Amino acid sequence: MIWNEEIETMPRQDLEELQLKKLQATVKRAFNEIPYYNKKYSEAEVYPEDIECLNDIQKLPFITKDDLRESYPFGLFAVDMSKIKELHSSSGTTGKPVVSGYTEKDLDTWAETIARGLSMMGIGENDILQNTHGYGMFTGGFGVHYGSHKVGAAIIPISTGQTRRQIEIMQDFGTTGLIFTPSYGIHLGEIALEDGIDPKTLGIKAIGFGAEMWTEEIRQRVEEIFGAKAYNIYGLTELMGPGVGVECIEQKGLHIAEDIYYPEIIDPNTLENLGPNQKGELVLTNLQREGMPVIRFRTKDLTKLTYEKCGCGRTHARMSRITGRSDDMIKVKGVAIFPSQIEKALLRIGDVEPHYLIIVTRPGTLDEIEVKVEASQNLFFDGVKDMMAITDKIGKSIENETGIRVKVTLVEPKSLPRFEGKAKRVIDERDLH
Amino acid sequence: MIWNEEIETMPRQDLEELQLKKLQATVKRAFNEIPYYNKKYSEAEVYPEDIECLNDIQKLPFITKDDLRESYPFGLFAVDMSKIKELHSSSGTTGKPVVSGYTEKDLDTWAETIARGLSMMGIGENDILQNTHGYGMFTGGFGVHYGSHKVGAAIIPISTGQTRRQIEIMQDFGTTGLIFTPSYGIHLGEIALEDGIDPKTLGIKAIGFGAEMWTEEIRQRVEEIFGAKAYNIYGLTELMGPGVGVECIEQKGLHIAEDIYYPEIIDPNTLENLGPNQKGELVLTNLQREGMPVIRFRTKDLTKLTYEKCGCGRTHARMSRITGRSDDMIKVKGVAIFPSQIEKALLRIGDVEPHYLIIVTRPGTLDEIEVKVEASQNLFFDGVKDMMAITDKIGKSIENETGIRVKVTLVEPKSLPRFEGKAKRVIDERDLH
Ligand SMILES: [Zn+2]
Ligand SMILES: [Zn+2]
Repeated sequence: MIWNEEIETMPRQDLEELQLKKLQATVKRAFNEIPYYNKKYSEAEVYPEDIECLNDIQKLPFITKDDLRESYPFGLFAVDMSKIKELHSSSGTTGKPVVSGYTEKDLDTWAETIARGLSMMGIGENDILQNTHGYGMFTGGFGVHYGSHKVGAAIIPISTGQTRRQIEIMQDFGTTGLIFTPSYGIHLGEIALEDGIDPKTLGIKAIGFGAEMWTEEIRQRVEEIFGAKAYNIYGLTELMGPGVGVECIEQKGLHIAEDIYYPEIIDPNTLENLGPNQKGELVLTNLQREGMPVIRFRTKDLTKLTYEKCGCGRTHARMSRITGRSDDMIKVKGVAIFPSQIEKALLRIGDVEPHYLIIVTRPGTLDEIEVKVEASQNLFFDGVKDMMAITDKIGKSIENETGIRVKVTLVEPKSLPRFEGKAKRVIDERDLH
Repeated sequence: MIWNEEIETMPRQDLEELQLKKLQATVKRAFNEIPYYNKKYSEAEVYPEDIECLNDIQKLPFITKDDLRESYPFGLFAVDMSKIKELHSSSGTTGKPVVSGYTEKDLDTWAETIARGLSMMGIGENDILQNTHGYGMFTGGFGVHYGSHKVGAAIIPISTGQTRRQIEIMQDFGTTGLIFTPSYGIHLGEIALEDGIDPKTLGIKAIGFGAEMWTEEIRQRVEEIFGAKAYNIYGLTELMGPGVGVECIEQKGLHIAEDIYYPEIIDPNTLENLGPNQKGELVLTNLQREGMPVIRFRTKDLTKLTYEKCGCGRTHARMSRITGRSDDMIKVKGVAIFPSQIEKALLRIGDVEPHYLIIVTRPGTLDEIEVKVEASQNLFFDGVKDMMAITDKIGKSIENETGIRVKVTLVEPKSLPRFEGKAKRVIDERDLH
């Protein structure tokens, strides 16, 4: 089912006209109402009237997480605080957090994007949706919550944790849809199996993945465990929250809500715009945000866009799964490595769990990479000889994927940290100053 | 400001006519749509047409937490699951949890009750409301959240914990309203003072108390710490959530949203209805709930009602602060004692914090009560002699209040558990079977 048929299947030419109108209005409002943009655009000598076609967006300077931090807390708000109905913020583990403000209309826009996504996943008013994303300042929980209200599903706002209670509720309430991060989903599945419950028997129809990078193999694993299709949901607190892009039933990329977010792909080094199907950093612009319009935000997320019509009938561009971050890329011995490559290499091997940690050190003058991998329960009890063979196999698989020799260490099952939000896969201990 | 002037200041006669109409409709729907009520009322030989005046409600059987548990999960729903938009549940520490289901209209009714309450507290669209109640299955967080959206304040859905971050956000965001449990509020205040921040300088205008029993002295303490008025908010997940009653600026009892909840007071032993100003157990009835109408729910909370017109102009009945629970009452040596009495006795003494735990044991044939009390930071470092004097003073104060001699033990500051929801003040180790 297509939630907003008129918009989601709009011929591209009409869509682009709509985008241009909204972009012009957004730039004008930002320039007139927000001193940050006024100063930055004036310095760059670019003005609202310079936006005559969509490509003119490239004349505008980027905005980065650092800019947002410097505007902490409300420096990018375009409206009076009396119009702001809700505030969220990123976790702020490094420096000041980024704050996001929403007017009533913004909350509705946010819900609209998730409503489209839930409809892609086949979730509607007859479904019971268990939302294991955390609520609070984090946007993961609320985005899904508001979208669920809009499509009319019954939301169970259980948030993360209490895994056995989650399983009990799935059984008792008849949950048909699940929202989780892939790693929490696998954990849920593991615990259910431990308790003798086959997750496939729970009647789950669709799963929404959020807030974490993963591989196609992880998706397959989750789909096997629960016997249900798993769909990617993408978004960022800076832009609004989850809902920027969601996968349709074709599972061939995430449809970006293009009337609400304008996407670009740039080369993270040259900052030049790239064409369709070229991999680079995603840059996003809010096209209809009242409270805090963000224009040309460098997401640091690496992906590519396709504008081909999708089998589902929607015309909106699709982004591919995020395969890494331009700032998460590890450069070792001149070679760029992404955690996703390590993950891919691991998933080719049996007997290990897709839980790993990459530790980069520079003991002398040369970089060294250690990859800690959780052994599976079975392997762990089989003893040392098997473990050495597996270690060797993993090393070769990683070298195959990345071209780099790494040290592999097998660790006890469930000994590596699990993450509620985005998983932290890399510990870089080199002094890179 | 009165949020819903027409309803909140309605002459009592009109209000009672409205209540009767709504009660008749509710009983009829429950009898026709919900097998539980149909069976129970048929067995008691009472039928919808027997409700001819408000007092006829007394013909209907009570419903208890156990009944709700037996109906787990959806046995009391009056509508099809496709109409249910949200599910909550109590924590279920004893036995199966109680589930609460909401239609779209129910969510709006819930928001309406909190909107009236926030308006009583002076919170409106120019305010920034920091909600430290937990979100999730617990209703504390969401009730306030929806009510805040309705009055148009900017909600900070931070939930409990991360106390230093809470204080930072209060400073940075310019929070004007706070929602907390009294014990978490005192903790917040303690931490701020530890960090050299006087909470009075934070610009807090109003505080909403929820989910915990407290005394007038605790209110004074919180009001002194924050330099702001603190208002009581009352509610239960079974009936909908917080918002059943909220205090107005007069701070002389909580106005019950009487067009939405019908209140009665009964003697918890004889189950007879009591008159105005007589203390007993509160019994509540949903008057306009679609998803799950609950009729004559025994709350176990002890209070009394007054129907006198309030200085604020509202005509809705006021309940007094909850002073105990009919099931939390400790009977020792034939005397009924409530934790609130212990609390009152403690607050009369300086040098101790209002954090305490009551432990009831029966070492031989006689009951013994031990009260563990947290010493203040200063006292704790002053040494043994002072502590013995204080212990003695507390013992006398408690004896004065309850007529019972108890053993008093001073414990280290901050060593007793803090609670997110309702504080558990009594540990009864007697074998009472
Ligand atoms: Zn599609
Ligand atoms: Zn009043």
